[in-house]
Amino acid sequence: MMLKNIDCGKLTKANVGQEVILNGWVQGWRDFGGILFIDFRDRTGIVQIVFNPAFSGSALDVGSRARNEYVLAVKGKVVERDPETFNANLATGEIEIQVTEVEVINAAKTPPFPIEDGVEVDESLRLKYRYLDLRRPEMQKTLLLRSKATKVFRDFLDDNGFIDVETPILTKSSPEGARDYLVPSRVHEGEFFALPQSPQLFKQLLMVSGIERYYQVARCFRDEDLRADRQPEFTQVDIETSFLSQDQLLGMMEQLMAKLFRETVGVEIPTPFQRLTYHDAIHKYGSDKPDLRFGLEIEDVTDIVSGSDVKVFASVAASGGVVKALNAKGCASWSRKELDDLQPFAARYGGKGIAWITVKDGEWRGPIVKFFKPEEIAALTERLNVEEGDLLTFSADKLKTAADVMGNLRLKVGRELGLIDNNAYRFLWVVDFPLLGWDEESKRFVAEHHPFTRPHDDDLELFNTDPGAIRAQAYDIVLNGYEVGGGSMRIYRRDVQEQMFKAIGLTAEEAQDKFGYLLEAFEFGAPPHGGIAFGLDRLVMLLAGRTNLRETIAFPKTASATDLLIDAPSPVADRQLDDLHIRVAIKTK
Amino acid sequence: MMLKNIDCGKLTKANVGQEVILNGWVQGWRDFGGILFIDFRDRTGIVQIVFNPAFSGSALDVGSRARNEYVLAVKGKVVERDPETFNANLATGEIEIQVTEVEVINAAKTPPFPIEDGVEVDESLRLKYRYLDLRRPEMQKTLLLRSKATKVFRDFLDDNGFIDVETPILTKSSPEGARDYLVPSRVHEGEFFALPQSPQLFKQLLMVSGIERYYQVARCFRDEDLRADRQPEFTQVDIETSFLSQDQLLGMMEQLMAKLFRETVGVEIPTPFQRLTYHDAIHKYGSDKPDLRFGLEIEDVTDIVSGSDVKVFASVAASGGVVKALNAKGCASWSRKELDDLQPFAARYGGKGIAWITVKDGEWRGPIVKFFKPEEIAALTERLNVEEGDLLTFSADKLKTAADVMGNLRLKVGRELGLIDNNAYRFLWVVDFPLLGWDEESKRFVAEHHPFTRPHDDDLELFNTDPGAIRAQAYDIVLNGYEVGGGSMRIYRRDVQEQMFKAIGLTAEEAQDKFGYLLEAFEFGAPPHGGIAFGLDRLVMLLAGRTNLRETIAFPKTASATDLLIDAPSPVADRQLDDLHIRVAIKTK
Repeated sequence: MMLKNIDCGKLTKANVGQEVILNGWVQGWRDFGGILFIDFRDRTGIVQIVFNPAFSGSALDVGSRARNEYVLAVKGKVVERDPETFNANLATGEIEIQVTEVEVINAAKTPPFPIEDGVEVDESLRLKYRYLDLRRPEMQKTLLLRSKATKVFRDFLDDNGFIDVETPILTKSSPEGARDYLVPSRVHEGEFFALPQSPQLFKQLLMVSGIERYYQVARCFRDEDLRADRQPEFTQVDIETSFLSQDQLLGMMEQLMAKLFRETVGVEIPTPFQRLTYHDAIHKYGSDKPDLRFGLEIEDVTDIVSGSDVKVFASVAASGGVVKALNAKGCASWSRKELDDLQPFAARYGGKGIAWITVKDGEWRGPIVKFFKPEEIAALTERLNVEEGDLLTFSADKLKTAADVMGNLRLKVGRELGLIDNNAYRFLWVVDFPLLGWDEESKRFVAEHHPFTRPHDDDLELFNTDPGAIRAQAYDIVLNGYEVGGGSMRIYRRDVQEQMFKAIGLTAEEAQDKFGYLLEAFEFGAPPHGGIAFGLDRLVMLLAGRTNLRETIAFPKTASATDLLIDAPSPVADRQLDDLHIRVAIKTK
Repeated sequence: MMLKNIDCGKLTKANVGQEVILNGWVQGWRDFGGILFIDFRDRTGIVQIVFNPAFSGSALDVGSRARNEYVLAVKGKVVERDPETFNANLATGEIEIQVTEVEVINAAKTPPFPIEDGVEVDESLRLKYRYLDLRRPEMQKTLLLRSKATKVFRDFLDDNGFIDVETPILTKSSPEGARDYLVPSRVHEGEFFALPQSPQLFKQLLMVSGIERYYQVARCFRDEDLRADRQPEFTQVDIETSFLSQDQLLGMMEQLMAKLFRETVGVEIPTPFQRLTYHDAIHKYGSDKPDLRFGLEIEDVTDIVSGSDVKVFASVAASGGVVKALNAKGCASWSRKELDDLQPFAARYGGKGIAWITVKDGEWRGPIVKFFKPEEIAALTERLNVEEGDLLTFSADKLKTAADVMGNLRLKVGRELGLIDNNAYRFLWVVDFPLLGWDEESKRFVAEHHPFTRPHDDDLELFNTDPGAIRAQAYDIVLNGYEVGGGSMRIYRRDVQEQMFKAIGLTAEEAQDKFGYLLEAFEFGAPPHGGIAFGLDRLVMLLAGRTNLRETIAFPKTASATDLLIDAPSPVADRQLDDLHIRVAIKTK
C-alpha cells in the first residue's frame, strides 16, 4: 500500500505544490456534477480531497465507491482553494488535495451512529462499539488530555526526585474497607490472591526501604456497588515520601496541581490553597468536600434558638443536636411548591425536614415565625445577615444529618442562583479529619481514612479516653466540590500501630495474621512517612469539563461492572475452574 | 522532629561551615576513645557524622545508644576532615559533620542480614525481608535504573506522537496460549473476568479507533509453570501503530533502543540492527534468539554425509532429518570426560547424542572417523574450515532437535572459550517466523506468535495447501541471546482473520463467541496496523548486568508464585467466597 508521508491535519498553505500521500478515513463525501469531494480524516484532523476527471483518471471510479469510514490511501497534489471556497471550520480549509491515485485499504459498513461530536446515542450502544465511539473528536481529545495529564504528573515527580516503582497486582486480601476482587491460585490449593484496593502497604514498605520518594500511576480495584462515578478498576497517581512534614508535602502537591492545570488547560492556579479543618468544612459548608466556587456559608444558630418556643429546635438542642441555618439570599420569591419540596429534599439526606422563613416587605413569614421571641429574631437577623428578599432555612438534627441537609441545600441554591463560575477551578485542602468513626452496625470504631493513618501527636492520649475525638494527620484535596485526592501521614512505630489496630477491634492475633509483616517492618528502622493518592480518572474528568468518569476511560465498565464491548465477565470452561480448585456455587433463591 | 535541609550524599566541601540537618539511617558506628563516628546513610549516599564531648554535649549520650539501622535526625556543622583522614571510598569523604543535636526517630532491631552489597544470603530470607533487602545500594540502584529506563521509553514515545492509553485489567478469558488468571464476579453469578496476558486486542481496537500510535507500560499476567526467568505478573512496554510498514516500525524501535541504552548506561548502540530470518537463525545459530556477541556458526553437512558409512547420518538424512556440525575451534584438547559429557548434554535438549572428531597432530580421531571416505573428509575440511586443534561436533536429528543441541553447544563452547564480550550489547531482529506450528498433542496447527498475526501477503494462498509454510509478518528483538521484545503486523481484514481462526481449528461459532467483537470491528474501517511489546523486566535485568528477573522487581514472587513478604496467596473468609458464588473444591488425591 501507499504509506503516508504527512498527516492530514498538518497540511497548510506551506505544502502547496507538493505531492503528498495520506492514509485515513472517509469522514463524508459529496458529488457535485461528477466531481467528488471527500472530507478525509486521520488522528490529526480533516482535509478535503478532490477527485476530478481532469486530474484523477481512474482514481475517480475507485473513490466513488468509497463510503463513510472507508480506509483509503491517496496520492495527490496540494493546491490552494479558491478564496470563496475557503472552509473556516477546517484548520486545513485553505487547501485541498487533487487526487491522482487512490487505494481502498479497507471497506466499512455503515456505523451504528455518526462519527461526530455531540451525538445523542444510548450509552450502551456507544460502549458496545467503543472503537467507533473513540473515533469521535471529543473522545480522542479526552484520551489525548489524559495521556498529557499523566505525563505532567510524571514529569513533575521525576523532576522532584521521585522514583517510579511498580508494586504487585497479585496481592493479599485484607478486607478492611471495601470488598476485594479475588484471584484463585492454581499452585496453592484453596488459596487466593487479591487485587489491590491501593498500593498502600507496599508504598509504606518502600519507605521502610529508604526509597524516600516514590510514585506510581497505579491501577486499583474495589468490588463495590457501583455508583455513577465509580469504576471497579480505577487509576491513582500514588505518592509517598519520607522525612517531610505534612506542610512540606502539601506545598509540593500544590505546585504539582498548578503545573498540571497550567500545562493541560492553560489555567494558572494560585497557591497556596486554602486549608479548612474537617470541623469547619462540616460546620460552614455541610460537606467534607465543599465547593468553594461560591460563598453562602451555613451558620450554627443552636445557641440562639435552643431556648425558643420552636419545639423541635429546643428538643434537638437539648439532646445534643444542632440547628443549622442557611440564608438563601434573594429566594423569598420561591413558590409554595418549591418551599414544599424542601421536605422531600431533606428526607433524601436523612433529615426530618427543613423549616423556612421568607422575608418580604420587611416582614418574616412562615409556619415557625410566630414562635420566635423578638430577641431571637434580632439575633438571627444579625447572625444570618437577613435582608429583604431572603429565604431563611433551618435543619435541626444530629450534626452529621443537619450538615448534610444544609450542605446539599447550599449546593442547590448556589446552582439555582447561578453563583457557580463554571470556568473556575477552586482548590482547597480539608485537614484534621477524625481518626476513627463509630460504626453503629458493628458497634465498634472504624478507621475513617485507613488504619495506617497517624494520629495527631497531641491526641495520642485519647486512645484510652475518647478515641472518637482523636484527630488524624489526614487530608483531602478538593476541587469544585469533588474529592480529587487524599492521604495522610502514616504511623511508623509498632506500638502506635498496635494501639490503632486495637482501637478498631482487631485482636493481637488478628493484627499479627493480617499485618504482621508491617508491624515487624516498623521494628527495623522505619522513617516517618506520609503520602497522597490522586484520582486520575476524576481529575481528567474535571480537566475535560465532563461529568461522567466513563468519558475519561478508554474501555470503561458499566454500572453493573460489565464490559459491553468484549462481553466480560463471562462463563469459563470447567477445566479452568478445576485447575484453580474452585467450583461455581450459585445459591438457589 | 528536625526536618532535613539537605541530603547526605549531596554534601561536599562547598558546604563547609554550614549548619545542616540530616535525616537518615545508621550504616555503622565506632567509638574511638570516647569519640563516636557514625556512617550516616540516606538514599543519596553516606556521610560521616561525629559526636565529640567537645561540641556534642548531651547529644553524645543519645548518639551512643544508636545501633545499626536506627533512624536519626541530626543537626551539626560541616567541617573539612584532616587530609590524612580523607575517605576516598566515600563521595563525601573530604568532610564530616560535627553533631550538636540528635533525635532518635526510630529504633531498629539487628537486621537478619547486613545492609550492604554482595551479601551471601538465602534468597527466600531476602524476599521475606524485602524492605531491608531493598535498602542495599545495588538494589536501590536497580530500582532507580528501572524508573529511569521507563522514563526514557515514555519520553521517546511521547516525543514521537504516541498516546499513553490505559486498557482494562479486568478483561475476558480467551485461553489461547497460556493459562489465564481468573477473577470471579460478584455481580454476575458464575461468571469470571480474566487478567490480561497482554493488552493485545484492546490495542488493536484502539487502532480501529484511529489512535494511530498507542503505548502503555502494561502489567500482564500468565498463570504458567514458572521458570527461573518468569514471573506470574510482568511488565511490557506495549506499542501499536497504524499505517506504518514493518520496516518503518522496526527502524523507529531501533532508535528507541539506542536512546534507552545511551541514556541509562551511556552506551552507543549502532543502528540499523542486523536482521536474520527465523530460518537462518535456526540453521546458523540453532536458536531463534541467537547470541551474536560471537561467531562460531553452525554448518549444515547433510549433503556431505548423507551417503556416508556413518549409519546414523545416512538414516537421518534419508528420513528427512539434518546433520548439523559445529567446529569448536581449538577444543581438541578437551579431556575424555568432557567428550563423554557431550552425550548427557545432547540428551538435555532431546538429542540422541553428539558425534565428535578431534584434530590433533594433523590427524582426525574419534569413533566415527573410520567410516568417512576421503572425499567426505575433504568436503568437511572445507565446509567446517578444519584446522589443527579443532573439535568437530555433529548432531543428526530432526531439524528442531539438531538445531537445539548444536545451538546450546555453541553457547557452551562460546562461554568456555571466552568468546563472549560481557560488555557488549549485540542486538538483532529475527524476522519471518512461521505463522503456524503443528502441535502433536492436539493434532492441529497453533499460532506461533498469536492468532492475530498477519501472514506474508505472498503466502496467503498457502492456507489451502501448506499452512505450515506460511511466513508471518512477525519479528523478535534479541539482545545477547535474550528475547527482549516481539511483535507483528496484524490481520486487519475479517476474511483473513476468519481464515486464520479456521487454520488453528476454531469453528465459526467458537471464533464468533470468543472474538466476535474483533471480527465485527474489522468491518467498520480497520486500518493496517502492527506493533511490538518489550519485556521491561528483562531489559532492565540486562541493563543492570543482573542474571535474575527478580532482582529487577521491587516485590517479586518466587518460582512457586508466592509473595514471601506479605504471605500471598492465602486463605480467605468463607463469607468472601459466598459473595463471589464460588466454593473451594480440592480434589482428594
